[in-house]
Amino acid sequence: MTKNRQIMIRALPTGALALEHFEMVESDLPIPGEGQVLIKTLILSQDAANRAWMQGATYRDAIGAGDVMSSGGIGEVVESNSIHFKVGDKVWADIGWQDYAAIDARLVSKIPAVSGPLTQAISLLGVAGKTAYHGLLNVPGIHAGETLLVSAAAGSVGSIVGQIGKIKGATVIGVAGGADKCDWVVNELGFDACLDYKDESSPLRKKVAATIPGGVDVYFDNTGGDILQCALFAMKLKGRISCCGAVSMYNGRPQPGPMGIPGLLVTKRLRMEGFLVSDFAQFDRDAEHDLAQWAAQGSLKVVEDVLEGLESAPAGLIGLLAGENRGKRMIRVA
Amino acid sequence: MTKNRQIMIRALPTGALALEHFEMVESDLPIPGEGQVLIKTLILSQDAANRAWMQGATYRDAIGAGDVMSSGGIGEVVESNSIHFKVGDKVWADIGWQDYAAIDARLVSKIPAVSGPLTQAISLLGVAGKTAYHGLLNVPGIHAGETLLVSAAAGSVGSIVGQIGKIKGATVIGVAGGADKCDWVVNELGFDACLDYKDESSPLRKKVAATIPGGVDVYFDNTGGDILQCALFAMKLKGRISCCGAVSMYNGRPQPGPMGIPGLLVTKRLRMEGFLVSDFAQFDRDAEHDLAQWAAQGSLKVVEDVLEGLESAPAGLIGLLAGENRGKRMIRVA
Repeated sequence: MTKNRQIMIRALPTGALALEHFEMVESDLPIPGEGQVLIKTLILSQDAANRAWMQGATYRDAIGAGDVMSSGGIGEVVESNSIHFKVGDKVWADIGWQDYAAIDARLVSKIPAVSGPLTQAISLLGVAGKTAYHGLLNVPGIHAGETLLVSAAAGSVGSIVGQIGKIKGATVIGVAGGADKCDWVVNELGFDACLDYKDESSPLRKKVAATIPGGVDVYFDNTGGDILQCALFAMKLKGRISCCGAVSMYNGRPQPGPMGIPGLLVTKRLRMEGFLVSDFAQFDRDAEHDLAQWAAQGSLKVVEDVLEGLESAPAGLIGLLAGENRGKRMIRVA
Repeated sequence: MTKNRQIMIRALPTGALALEHFEMVESDLPIPGEGQVLIKTLILSQDAANRAWMQGATYRDAIGAGDVMSSGGIGEVVESNSIHFKVGDKVWADIGWQDYAAIDARLVSKIPAVSGPLTQAISLLGVAGKTAYHGLLNVPGIHAGETLLVSAAAGSVGSIVGQIGKIKGATVIGVAGGADKCDWVVNELGFDACLDYKDESSPLRKKVAATIPGGVDVYFDNTGGDILQCALFAMKLKGRISCCGAVSMYNGRPQPGPMGIPGLLVTKRLRMEGFLVSDFAQFDRDAEHDLAQWAAQGSLKVVEDVLEGLESAPAGLIGLLAGENRGKRMIRVA
C-alpha cells in the first residue's frame, strides 16, 4: 500500500533554521473527506516566507511543532470529493512537505495553462513572478529613466523585478551576496550593476553612494535590515519603497528597525508600502499575460533552481535563507 | 538709534536643548541690500522642527553655532528694496529670533488675509493648520467611520488633525502626555478618547489595544519612537500612516527605528508616507478656505499658546519639546 512521506517540524527554531528542526515520517495515505481532494505532490515552492510562518501568525496561521511543514506547491488531483475538481487536474495549494495531502477544495486552485515546463507555474507565472510584477508595477510603479534598487537581486523575486525594471527603461542596480552572484546578476540578467553586500572592502552604504550618486527613485526591498538602512539613506526626495519581504530578519529574533524611521520619511517625503501578492489577485491575468510575453520575446529570463526529491526540502530551505539559490528554488517531488 | 536684539546659538546641543545653548546679543539694525526687505518681527512661530534643524541639513540647511536661531514668523515690512513688497506689508519669512531681519524678497511671502487676530496666520491658517490639513486629507485621507490615532494630540498640528478627523466622521483617539492634557483633548477638542503615554499604570501598547480593539485605520505620527511602535502593532490591515514629524527623536542622538519595519508593513500591507507642508502648496487655498470655514462654524477650535517677548523664545522652544504647550505656541515680539 502506498505510504505518505511527510516532513514534520520536530521543534520550532529559536535562531537559525537547521536540519534538526525537521524529521521525516511515513504515514498512511490520507482519505479525502466531504468536499476535499486528494493531491499528489509534483513540485513544491521554496520561499523565505516559509521560515517567517514559523515566527507566529501573520497573514496566515502560524505553524508549529508536530505540524507537517507548510509549503505551497503544485500537485495532481488523484481523488476528488468536490464538483470543482476532477482526477488529473493540476492544482496549486498549501500542500506542505509531503507526497500526498487531502485539502478542502475551496483552498485549492487550478493553475494557469503553461506553455513551457510545469515549474513555470511556480516561477514565472506563479507567486514569484506575480509578486515581482505586482510589487513593482502596482505598488511604487517604475518609470523610464528612473533608478531602481533591488535587494536579493539573484533571488526568485528580485531576479524578475530587476528584469522588469530594465524592460520598463529604468536603470537597475541589484544587491546580492558574493562576487560570483553579482557578476551573474549583471551578465546573465542584464542589471546595470550589482553590489556585493558581503564584500567587506567598503561598507554597502558607500558602494550604493558611489554607484548611484544621483539617488534611488524606487527601492524594492526583499531583505529589510542593513540593506533597507542603506537604501533609506540613498533615496531621492519623494522616493518609493516597496516592502516585499524581510529575509534578513526571518532567521532570528525580532530586531529594531532602521535608523531614520520616521525622520527620513518626513525629510525626504518617502513612501514605504508593504503588499502581499494576493492583494492584486484581480490583476493576475495582466501579470500572467505580460510575463509570458516578455519571456517568449526573450526580454525576461526565467531562472529556476530545482532540487530533486522531497528529502531535499529542509536543506533547500536552509540554503535559500542563506542565499545560495539563483532564481526560483523548487523541489521536484514526483 | 534702534538696536536689533538677536538670540544666537552659542553652541549646538548634543543632547537635550537647554538655555545655555543660546545667548542674546544686541547689534545695529541690518541694512537691506538690493532686492531685500527689512522686516520688523511681530510674531514668531515655535515648532519642534526648529530643534531638528540643529541636527544637520534636511529639507533645509542646518543651523549652527554663531547663527541667529532660525524660526519662521510674521513681520511687517519697514523698508523695501523690492518691487514686490511695500512698507506696511505683513509677511511670513524665516525671520529668526530677532527684532529685525533683512531678507531677500524671494524668500518672503505675503500672509493670507486673516479675519481674526494676526496669530491665526500662524496657527489656523499658517503652517500648523496647513500641515494638519494636507497631512491628513492629502496623504492618507480619512473616511467617515474610520479610526484615526493622533500623537502629540494637544500640539499645534495634532489638535487640528483630530478635530478635522471628527469633522470628517472618524472616531478619533489622541495620545498625549499627562492626565490633565488628555482630559483637555477630550473635553475641549472633542476627541473620542486620549491616551496618556506618561501614565505608567499600563504600557501604552495595552492602552491602545484596550481602547481601539478593532485596530487603527489611519495613524498621524507627530512623534516617532515608542508611540509609532505602539501604532504599528495596532494598525489594521491596509492601514495608512502619515509621517509628519518625529518630535521624540529631535532632542538627542539618532535611534533605531521601530521593530517590525519592514515586517509589519508587509504582513499588514501598511503604507507609511512622509510629507512636508510645502509639497501641497498648490492646494493651500483649499486648506485656508476649509479651515477658516470650520473655525467660523465653530466646528474647529483654534487653540493658541502665545508667550510674550523675544526673550521667552528659548524657554518656549525647550518647553515645547517637553510637550508643555497646548495648541500652537508662538512668541509675540512686537
